[in-house]
Amino acid sequence: MADQLGVEPVNDYALLDIDREKRLGFPEVVFGENKTSAQLIGIAERMSAHTSRLLMTRVDAAKAEQITACVPGLHYHAEACMLTGFGPAPKPERGGYIAVVCAGTSDLRVAQEAAVTLEMMGSRVERITDVGVAGIHRLFARLELIREADVVIAIAGMEGALPSVLGGLVAKPLIAVPTSIGYGTGLNGLIALGAMLNGCAPGVTVVNIDNGFGAAYAAASIHKQTRRET
Amino acid sequence: MADQLGVEPVNDYALLDIDREKRLGFPEVVFGENKTSAQLIGIAERMSAHTSRLLMTRVDAAKAEQITACVPGLHYHAEACMLTGFGPAPKPERGGYIAVVCAGTSDLRVAQEAAVTLEMMGSRVERITDVGVAGIHRLFARLELIREADVVIAIAGMEGALPSVLGGLVAKPLIAVPTSIGYGTGLNGLIALGAMLNGCAPGVTVVNIDNGFGAAYAAASIHKQTRRET
Amino acid sequence: MADQLGVEPVNDYALLDIDREKRLGFPEVVFGENKTSAQLIGIAERMSAHTSRLLMTRVDAAKAEQITACVPGLHYHAEACMLTGFGPAPKPERGGYIAVVCAGTSDLRVAQEAAVTLEMMGSRVERITDVGVAGIHRLFARLELIREADVVIAIAGMEGALPSVLGGLVAKPLIAVPTSIGYGTGLNGLIALGAMLNGCAPGVTVVNIDNGFGAAYAAASIHKQTRRET
Amino acid sequence: MADQLGVEPVNDYALLDIDREKRLGFPEVVFGENKTSAQLIGIAERMSAHTSRLLMTRVDAAKAEQITACVPGLHYHAEACMLTGFGPAPKPERGGYIAVVCAGTSDLRVAQEAAVTLEMMGSRVERITDVGVAGIHRLFARLELIREADVVIAIAGMEGALPSVLGGLVAKPLIAVPTSIGYGTGLNGLIALGAMLNGCAPGVTVVNIDNGFGAAYAAASIHKQTRRET
Amino acid sequence: MADQLGVEPVNDYALLDIDREKRLGFPEVVFGENKTSAQLIGIAERMSAHTSRLLMTRVDAAKAEQITACVPGLHYHAEACMLTGFGPAPKPERGGYIAVVCAGTSDLRVAQEAAVTLEMMGSRVERITDVGVAGIHRLFARLELIREADVVIAIAGMEGALPSVLGGLVAKPLIAVPTSIGYGTGLNGLIALGAMLNGCAPGVTVVNIDNGFGAAYAAASIHKQTRRET
Amino acid sequence: MADQLGVEPVNDYALLDIDREKRLGFPEVVFGENKTSAQLIGIAERMSAHTSRLLMTRVDAAKAEQITACVPGLHYHAEACMLTGFGPAPKPERGGYIAVVCAGTSDLRVAQEAAVTLEMMGSRVERITDVGVAGIHRLFARLELIREADVVIAIAGMEGALPSVLGGLVAKPLIAVPTSIGYGTGLNGLIALGAMLNGCAPGVTVVNIDNGFGAAYAAASIHKQTRRET
Amino acid sequence: MADQLGVEPVNDYALLDIDREKRLGFPEVVFGENKTSAQLIGIAERMSAHTSRLLMTRVDAAKAEQITACVPGLHYHAEACMLTGFGPAPKPERGGYIAVVCAGTSDLRVAQEAAVTLEMMGSRVERITDVGVAGIHRLFARLELIREADVVIAIAGMEGALPSVLGGLVAKPLIAVPTSIGYGTGLNGLIALGAMLNGCAPGVTVVNIDNGFGAAYAAASIHKQTRRET
Amino acid sequence: MADQLGVEPVNDYALLDIDREKRLGFPEVVFGENKTSAQLIGIAERMSAHTSRLLMTRVDAAKAEQITACVPGLHYHAEACMLTGFGPAPKPERGGYIAVVCAGTSDLRVAQEAAVTLEMMGSRVERITDVGVAGIHRLFARLELIREADVVIAIAGMEGALPSVLGGLVAKPLIAVPTSIGYGTGLNGLIALGAMLNGCAPGVTVVNIDNGFGAAYAAASIHKQTRRET
Repeated sequence: MADQLGVEPVNDYALLDIDREKRLGFPEVVFGENKTSAQLIGIAERMSAHTSRLLMTRVDAAKAEQITACVPGLHYHAEACMLTGFGPAPKPERGGYIAVVCAGTSDLRVAQEAAVTLEMMGSRVERITDVGVAGIHRLFARLELIREADVVIAIAGMEGALPSVLGGLVAKPLIAVPTSIGYGTGLNGLIALGAMLNGCAPGVTVVNIDNGFGAAYAAASIHKQTRRET
Repeated sequence: MADQLGVEPVNDYALLDIDREKRLGFPEVVFGENKTSAQLIGIAERMSAHTSRLLMTRVDAAKAEQITACVPGLHYHAEACMLTGFGPAPKPERGGYIAVVCAGTSDLRVAQEAAVTLEMMGSRVERITDVGVAGIHRLFARLELIREADVVIAIAGMEGALPSVLGGLVAKPLIAVPTSIGYGTGLNGLIALGAMLNGCAPGVTVVNIDNGFGAAYAAASIHKQTRRET
Repeated sequence: MADQLGVEPVNDYALLDIDREKRLGFPEVVFGENKTSAQLIGIAERMSAHTSRLLMTRVDAAKAEQITACVPGLHYHAEACMLTGFGPAPKPERGGYIAVVCAGTSDLRVAQEAAVTLEMMGSRVERITDVGVAGIHRLFARLELIREADVVIAIAGMEGALPSVLGGLVAKPLIAVPTSIGYGTGLNGLIALGAMLNGCAPGVTVVNIDNGFGAAYAAASIHKQTRRET
Repeated sequence: MADQLGVEPVNDYALLDIDREKRLGFPEVVFGENKTSAQLIGIAERMSAHTSRLLMTRVDAAKAEQITACVPGLHYHAEACMLTGFGPAPKPERGGYIAVVCAGTSDLRVAQEAAVTLEMMGSRVERITDVGVAGIHRLFARLELIREADVVIAIAGMEGALPSVLGGLVAKPLIAVPTSIGYGTGLNGLIALGAMLNGCAPGVTVVNIDNGFGAAYAAASIHKQTRRET
Repeated sequence: MADQLGVEPVNDYALLDIDREKRLGFPEVVFGENKTSAQLIGIAERMSAHTSRLLMTRVDAAKAEQITACVPGLHYHAEACMLTGFGPAPKPERGGYIAVVCAGTSDLRVAQEAAVTLEMMGSRVERITDVGVAGIHRLFARLELIREADVVIAIAGMEGALPSVLGGLVAKPLIAVPTSIGYGTGLNGLIALGAMLNGCAPGVTVVNIDNGFGAAYAAASIHKQTRRET
Repeated sequence: MADQLGVEPVNDYALLDIDREKRLGFPEVVFGENKTSAQLIGIAERMSAHTSRLLMTRVDAAKAEQITACVPGLHYHAEACMLTGFGPAPKPERGGYIAVVCAGTSDLRVAQEAAVTLEMMGSRVERITDVGVAGIHRLFARLELIREADVVIAIAGMEGALPSVLGGLVAKPLIAVPTSIGYGTGLNGLIALGAMLNGCAPGVTVVNIDNGFGAAYAAASIHKQTRRET
Repeated sequence: MADQLGVEPVNDYALLDIDREKRLGFPEVVFGENKTSAQLIGIAERMSAHTSRLLMTRVDAAKAEQITACVPGLHYHAEACMLTGFGPAPKPERGGYIAVVCAGTSDLRVAQEAAVTLEMMGSRVERITDVGVAGIHRLFARLELIREADVVIAIAGMEGALPSVLGGLVAKPLIAVPTSIGYGTGLNGLIALGAMLNGCAPGVTVVNIDNGFGAAYAAASIHKQTRRET
Repeated sequence: MADQLGVEPVNDYALLDIDREKRLGFPEVVFGENKTSAQLIGIAERMSAHTSRLLMTRVDAAKAEQITACVPGLHYHAEACMLTGFGPAPKPERGGYIAVVCAGTSDLRVAQEAAVTLEMMGSRVERITDVGVAGIHRLFARLELIREADVVIAIAGMEGALPSVLGGLVAKPLIAVPTSIGYGTGLNGLIALGAMLNGCAPGVTVVNIDNGFGAAYAAASIHKQTRRET
């Protein structure tokens, strides 16, 4: 049971931040990568007593199978490696949409992580895929859809140039996500990250490598403010 | 004279993006660090024909003196190392404000760069200084002012922990700026940057080291959307 | 048999420092990661002739099974990946306790390594889990327990901010342990390490990434001095 | 004037943590490197109203001259690049002493920073200089003095091997300080730091490169506990 | 005097590769940065006996003044920091031209180094300046001129995205030069270099940071082959 | 179906650049490493409607088996990990040849990737293997064959010295490919890359680590120009 | 068959340096790690026609089994991961011996690689194991044996301090080998390498991480000179 | 006065290792870079009581002037930035010579540091300058002189390829010295160092960047053994 400070232990391995949904508008999101299935089950069960929305990131298929067998009301998004709950997918809570733009086919897992997060947080999503800068007319072919978005998330690996180009074409908040796609001197995404941080288009902000979730959380936070009056 | 593509050369060293203000809402901003005074004078003069707003970053005092002697209507902000023009400071164009929060006295130059940029772009600013996490009650003493902002910019060097703590306390878009303040293993800001990218509070986005301008540009872009109805 | 210099060979692969317990107060601790089961068995057997306390770190379950089958009196701590011996767990040898504080559920293995080491060295332990800075009231909910400790060990991955915050709240010796938990730019713990070394709270000292054992050894060494009169 | 939260602004550039001395036993220490003389003067003047002990680190001779001309009661320690105040040097507050051991003549500035800090915090200091491992009998010639200390601070640049060797010889808490002394692949102290973090002697803890102050603060904190009964 | 192996010593500090012009088509080029004026004068004098073409790179204005005072027939290119000789500038030796494209005003020194080298090697040059990707219509405004070149040199600092975009638009050999322009995480050009090596447009090759000379030498070598029949 | 912008989607995961062959002379090349077999099959099928030439790099044997079972007309090159199609191998389209020179037996996979790419693009290839600089007479034994090439590709891991030596002996365009062969401080090819970028022979250009394809694409682009009249 | 330049191809994947034994005193040594069993068999067979001494390094047990089944006269050294041939082990060819000193049990594989190489090259070896600096009396217990050697090889991972200490005690040529043993900030041996390069004992030279073979080759080369008259 | 342990303090800043000359054959060498003139004078005066040979490295001209004014019998080698004493230059103490080979004119300071050290230690030196691998016939022109040496020191910056090439041509102990000469990705010598550590010629050993002294000390130590009978 949560104590008066809004804190509730799960056995001896976790301390849930029960107040978080009230304080910040969305419950604690669970990072699944370094936790055991048993720990994730315990956390999910406890959270089901406090919230109707659960988001677990970086859950592989094997863990997902074990968890969904134990905890009712969860849905596994295989491309995004995410578990969501409890119950049916939420409806958009506000007008407008967020564009999730990715440079290559290989960046899709990260794009899906962003899209599922956004939908859980009540934003509508438009997906634009495989518009990297080496064939730049592909980007122009989708430019209107991007320009009409309230917020843009730009995802790219390798040389990470997509946000720089977009930043010069689109007058909307733009969040860049470097991915670990590439090889050799790509350094598992560090070059893409560096390129995004050093882009000459002003106003692009950046999140950690492969962090589709973080970009989506930030985008939803902007979206909520933008559309609070609607 | 700008050609039909909205491009205008300045001698043989620059190609102004004249359409930018119409396309993106703010004219090209000039990065002063690697340009000569002569180049900056040439660019400022040419821009004065096309816009009433000029922003030059990373201009040291010596260059500033030469440029203001040649180009009328410029104002030098010594703490921020910036030149703005043309004419008097702009008035806030929308309601609300942006909180520019910095962890230590040494981070002030970057905070000033952010504040001047925001004011040039029409946003009101509240400055909160020296509230680093090693004396965390200082932060709590200013928390309400931060929570009421439309967007928060959090600036910190050394271990860069301020955005993580703020991200768990404030439900607003939060942009983190690592600074190069520190020594030894601080690696001129790389550790602060890394800490901000790896923060466990979701939704924090990050810009380049010492890039107060970039954070402000992104914040203003969010602010414009948020308050577009006013 | 140990020669006059207090040195005893184990076959041709090890040279035990037999005098160590007398010289430093605790026998040689065996790092298990890069040694074969056969080597570890040989070392354990030889040490059983000289000491009643054995500590082996970084021993996985498979090796542990082989070793405990050969050497009597050993106990395997699965969460901590450690073997201890010989015989029952030692009792606390002094008053007071050491707080082992960790930021997230994923840091538990390192916390357990620290706790088992401390108990083997005669110190009582209080475990405080999942109090990372992104939900800082969780930390405040446990603050008194931490403040009453004789020494504090603070364990965190990702942005490694916990020791900085604690260092401003607690007036006790504080040892920080970065963990390799995280991804992308976390660089397997290098960012957490860097943040801890650059923390603005004075007096925090740091050990190697994931080195729960080393932090505990240092903490016990302080604890022994602090409570030598009891 | 400090408000009820124990926080007091100095103009618009600093926010003093007035409660710190009561909370943690020593007032806020001022890092001088990135602050202007004017800021340091303002901070020193304000602190003089609240405490009789002031410590400013990384103050070069030029700044020191300006500050001592304005603020009475300060003393400049040129070798250590520190300012202390207010009034005469404090007397040892407890029995025993701390050994400040350094590997080479070039490490002296860091050793002096540690020694001045310790003396300000009430601990007696023994200085042992130029006992690096390449002439290891020099270390043995001073070993008894080191062994009798309550805490040992070991300072070394280049290959940073001194703490490893000491850690196998001395059964006391041992804090290592890497210095930036060296060239080429020394990487301004990163190799010494790395060597200290990877030392095979257990129980050595480490602080940032050249951070004599931080090591001393930690050592004094241990010393206070050790000798609290005397 | 050159010996039979085509090798000629200059005092005791250099060994000229006299045969190089015959063997490779262009005499040895002298890297001026780490040589004294006296050494450069000695080398220039000796080379004047063997060739009518001299190229010295990275010669600052002070050295240039001393050298031109001693060695007749040299010309100093201040923007490019180069000395050339002997006599008047050479005429184009073949048809077609090479496009030297640079992303920003700050990249001009490197662009000039490339252009002077190309002209010394007999190729005609078209300079296209300030066409970085953040205002991509500036690039399209110059695209035909670039497409008609025999070889393209693309120079950019910061995020280094120009070659990727050009590589998808232009079917000619394309050599990319990263520059050290930028700050913070730009790492003095390493990010631009990394981005160029990881670009998704195939067929872009890269030279060292700021190495305008090397790119020009490679481009001239291609140009010679391309136009060998004319 | 491709729309008017020359862009054609493949389900929701790819956007083919159909115009590329017309625009740049060769169709889009598919990087297979991070794509699933299903995605590669979809892409290959769609491309078969638009081009007679298909090149897929980094396809392992398991994926290749699945793809060739579904898509007719493909050929798998096991040493090069490449799929080519559609139909029989193309004939040389121009005179002369390209020398693919590699330093060691272990560099052969990269050399084969380069050779297959060149042949697909219509250039004849001469392979020269195992002529690393530690037995430099092996290189001299093959020097005439290298000198007669139109373009030279030099492939080396470890210390990456081959291009520097070749660059001083051969007056032809020379493209260097670092490989990830080596261990310890080789840093998976970063040292070889660095050595190639810093080579003192002018005019060598470099591609990403292990990027035999990229070097070949650049070489073919030069070759086409060189032999356009024949 | 070897041509007149002393070069002999093995199929299309290797070019043997047949003259090497005559030129340098020992035949080509084969690095087995990145070669297939088939390639190693081909090379071994061809070399058997030219030399009575074969050394293959980094051959795992599976490859070794395949190779020894095909090529007669080879012996596999499992601890050292080496194959030697042809026939019985060679006898020492000169007086004196080389000391192979290693810091820990985990460094044994590298030590064995050094020892087997030395014996193949005709030098006698004394092995001294587990004498790391954290229990420095273990080293003193073996010091006379080390001092009497003609050359000393010192092998250590982690903080790599052994060569610095030895360098101050022993007046003989000393070659240091860093190993990849360690974890966290050990960076797979880079810290040990850095410590060895920055050691304050003069005259220590260093080889690549884990390169026991290279150190032994260098030591044997010195030994040959030292004892050439005997 | 030296105590019984062979240790003598110089004021409070140094502890001379008086026994070193007897123990290791050469007195302590003083690294001058981070010491003040006053400290160097104190050390030199004290050493003059114990030895007739003094070597101080990294002493700039300004310090040298102050020191030679105070301490009689010293000689300053400006190119090598070294002070030697006391009295006239020593004569060769043994037959044979050591070849100091450097790749470029810019590497001369390091070569001189090596040569002066060798002469002080009693070895004769042959200097071979500017024989880098990009004009490899220059190296062949000097090859016999190198082959006849007892030990070879190979010095190179940039890509550091000289030792690899020499290692395949010369059957003598070979010590490589990377220099910080280069720019951009040369990383102040780290690439040259890496190339030398990864060279495919066996038996090359390496010292720290720019460490001509260390290479010479090691070479002299080998030379002494080689010629001990003469």
